[in-house]
Amino acid sequence: MKDNTVICAVSTPAGIGGIAVIRISGKNAFNICDKIFIAENGIKIIDFKANTIHYGKIVKHESDENNCQLVDEVLLAVFHAPHSFTGEDTVEISCHGSIYIQQEILKLLLANGCTLAAPGEFTQRAFLNGKMDLSQAEAVADLIASSSAASHRLAINQMRGGFSGELQRLRIQLLDFVSLIELELDFGEENVEFADRSRLVRLAEEIKTMLTGLVQSFGLGNVLKNGIPVVIVGETNSGKSTLLNLLLNEEKAIVSEIHGTTRDAIEDIVNIKGVTFRFIDTAGIRNTGDEVEKIGIQRTFRKIDQAAIVIWMIDTTHFNKEIEYIADKIVPKTKHKKLIIAFNKIDKISPEEQQILEDEFLPHVPAEHIYLSAKYKQNTEKLEQALLQAANLPKLSANDIIVTNLRHYEALTKALESITRVEKGLVSHLPNDLIAQDIRECLHHFGEITGEITTDEMLGNIFRKFCIGK
Amino acid sequence: MKDNTVICAVSTPAGIGGIAVIRISGKNAFNICDKIFIAENGIKIIDFKANTIHYGKIVKHESDENNCQLVDEVLLAVFHAPHSFTGEDTVEISCHGSIYIQQEILKLLLANGCTLAAPGEFTQRAFLNGKMDLSQAEAVADLIASSSAASHRLAINQMRGGFSGELQRLRIQLLDFVSLIELELDFGEENVEFADRSRLVRLAEEIKTMLTGLVQSFGLGNVLKNGIPVVIVGETNSGKSTLLNLLLNEEKAIVSEIHGTTRDAIEDIVNIKGVTFRFIDTAGIRNTGDEVEKIGIQRTFRKIDQAAIVIWMIDTTHFNKEIEYIADKIVPKTKHKKLIIAFNKIDKISPEEQQILEDEFLPHVPAEHIYLSAKYKQNTEKLEQALLQAANLPKLSANDIIVTNLRHYEALTKALESITRVEKGLVSHLPNDLIAQDIRECLHHFGEITGEITTDEMLGNIFRKFCIGK
Repeated sequence: MKDNTVICAVSTPAGIGGIAVIRISGKNAFNICDKIFIAENGIKIIDFKANTIHYGKIVKHESDENNCQLVDEVLLAVFHAPHSFTGEDTVEISCHGSIYIQQEILKLLLANGCTLAAPGEFTQRAFLNGKMDLSQAEAVADLIASSSAASHRLAINQMRGGFSGELQRLRIQLLDFVSLIELELDFGEENVEFADRSRLVRLAEEIKTMLTGLVQSFGLGNVLKNGIPVVIVGETNSGKSTLLNLLLNEEKAIVSEIHGTTRDAIEDIVNIKGVTFRFIDTAGIRNTGDEVEKIGIQRTFRKIDQAAIVIWMIDTTHFNKEIEYIADKIVPKTKHKKLIIAFNKIDKISPEEQQILEDEFLPHVPAEHIYLSAKYKQNTEKLEQALLQAANLPKLSANDIIVTNLRHYEALTKALESITRVEKGLVSHLPNDLIAQDIRECLHHFGEITGEITTDEMLGNIFRKFCIGK
Repeated sequence: MKDNTVICAVSTPAGIGGIAVIRISGKNAFNICDKIFIAENGIKIIDFKANTIHYGKIVKHESDENNCQLVDEVLLAVFHAPHSFTGEDTVEISCHGSIYIQQEILKLLLANGCTLAAPGEFTQRAFLNGKMDLSQAEAVADLIASSSAASHRLAINQMRGGFSGELQRLRIQLLDFVSLIELELDFGEENVEFADRSRLVRLAEEIKTMLTGLVQSFGLGNVLKNGIPVVIVGETNSGKSTLLNLLLNEEKAIVSEIHGTTRDAIEDIVNIKGVTFRFIDTAGIRNTGDEVEKIGIQRTFRKIDQAAIVIWMIDTTHFNKEIEYIADKIVPKTKHKKLIIAFNKIDKISPEEQQILEDEFLPHVPAEHIYLSAKYKQNTEKLEQALLQAANLPKLSANDIIVTNLRHYEALTKALESITRVEKGLVSHLPNDLIAQDIRECLHHFGEITGEITTDEMLGNIFRKFCIGK
């Protein structure tokens, strides 16, 4: 498994910035970097103390002459194996954040024996060198991608051990049992019993309970990681996009204020007090004879199926017969969902008119009613509150273990199937060899999660989703 | 001038990456960071040795409870004043490069007493704390923006002292002289002469020569920094855009290969062997009666005026009367420019036909002839060579001082005017007070470059062009 190549990559985001960091990791990293770095104090990198930073120059030796060309003035940090992220000797060069300089330093490193790191290769090495298990390595990518308090907390819990600690504990006990059972098999017909069957039943039950909890947590984990699906429906011009822009812009404003730049990568993901909502766009609804339009409207109704929360926007200044038509279409579809009815444009109606709406509108529909003006930002915070309430997420504590990773979910589901077979087999006194086989299967799926059992293909699939430089 | 606030900002490029670096600088930086950082070894930042890196956690204390929430596991580097970039106590936090985490850490720093750094504020502090002069500070921004070997070298020379060292040397001599002359003025009618007039004449000449050289270097500096303007003209469908895409794509391919991402910020800037060319887009030329089209073609001819190099593309398979019409239009306009005639689509003609072209085509036009196929990349490297030759840039040595900054150019031009008046005044025996005044003026303009003389407005103009975090 050991790889003697020295890998390098820019670890900071792509583009121009104040500074950029180039990471170099591998057995020969210090020697390679010594060829291109001249410390201000003249000391060689190989003689630097661990975890120290040194000011100096990156230089390029020109082939034709004896002199060398200054590429940049940098800070260079040194980490000694095994006390580094990868577990290998590691150097981090902080250079000026020009793309040209980043490229020149990479070219110099490549020319002196480094190879360019593949996506996630630093983290992969950390895994292969035993610095973290596979589920922790996967959490690093989740952490970098996290865009809300909830997804961040889940990723950081997982990175810090998450359920792999628990899996590990149960795994060791299962391993003990299966060895004993296999020992019994060795004695063949002597009918000895080394493994305490009643304890094994209890252990299987414990594992089953835990696995069931983890498997069930995936629904929540998925929602926390990818956002709660919300659909806004309503007539054309009821103010759907004004509302969405309002929610999006407030979020974007916070981001751009702090970063000094506008980021527009995330389009209709909105973070409200740490909870991620994923808004699904729909076309305006109306009762129409036009066949093409009808198809669009059918599509809108189908989108309701994907949502957990439905916001039905009503233009209070345009309160007409359509309402009943739309109610007939929407309400039956929201039986197992949360429905919020948002009465928009209240700036244009009198308090008396609003009161009439409140008293008379569809009292039979189980829905939250919000009166707001998306345009003038009146009561929009009430809508946000209603969304948070509708989301009704359990408050997570720092130690909650929630599965967010599809790969883990699949392995856990299979492990649950195996352990259920073990339990049943014990109760119905199945032969030892069959029970041992099911335990081994359960252990196999545990190992897939934590990485005791891997294949190159599996590792490839996991790490190619990482960014370069991590 | 001293500012006791502690500033913070993300110093790495905006966006998601493996890691991001947050820089904190100011007198109280260690105390503020100690409120949010828990080192693995329990030591406080304030007790860390200078230039060391520490592993630990960024934590957020929750108001309602006594416990705290983990924001990220980070590396934290400590620099002690005055041995830091800004000259102040500085902390650099390397966190996971999630936007969410970057924001959370910034929010925590702001909540604990930091203020968000303005663009260039770290460099401005470095200047105000005497770590670098103003022209060196400006070079930091140029260095970060540098996109070619030439612009990079100019910026790094300037950052390392550049001509400010030379200016400083001459400034001290001028200061000596002007003090002596002013001393003479104090003695009024006694007609003493402390300042050796012939030495002053020699000094004025020396300064004039240097300033003239620097002022003249600005033309070259500008071309090196912003690219040599090249215009490609020719008939519609002669292959102009195929050629441009070819040149652009080769460049982009190199960039994207190393960075693992495609960058498309720079549109028609092409780097050939370290020289930057700036391609100016033009419409196809043909002899037309259409009035609207005529205007477009007129515009194309006018663009030739902006170029230093003109590439005239000719479709060899479509060799017709238009050629003479275009030649009449183009050739007179390229008198003081370099003209390259590129015969395109040679894959479609026989060697004999090419020979005929070579022998007979416009022998009276002083131009380089290149035969190529842009589509099949035949001989395109010859075109690149011709471009480099046409650029004919002097080979810069590491110590060449070239002015690239408009502000410096303007100050140098004014200083040159003053020193020319000093020289003339000495020759024509002008009164001492007038000569002293001109010397003072020259010194003033020197001081504007290096930053001895600044105004808030001037500093504001300089540093607001920086990126945040530098």
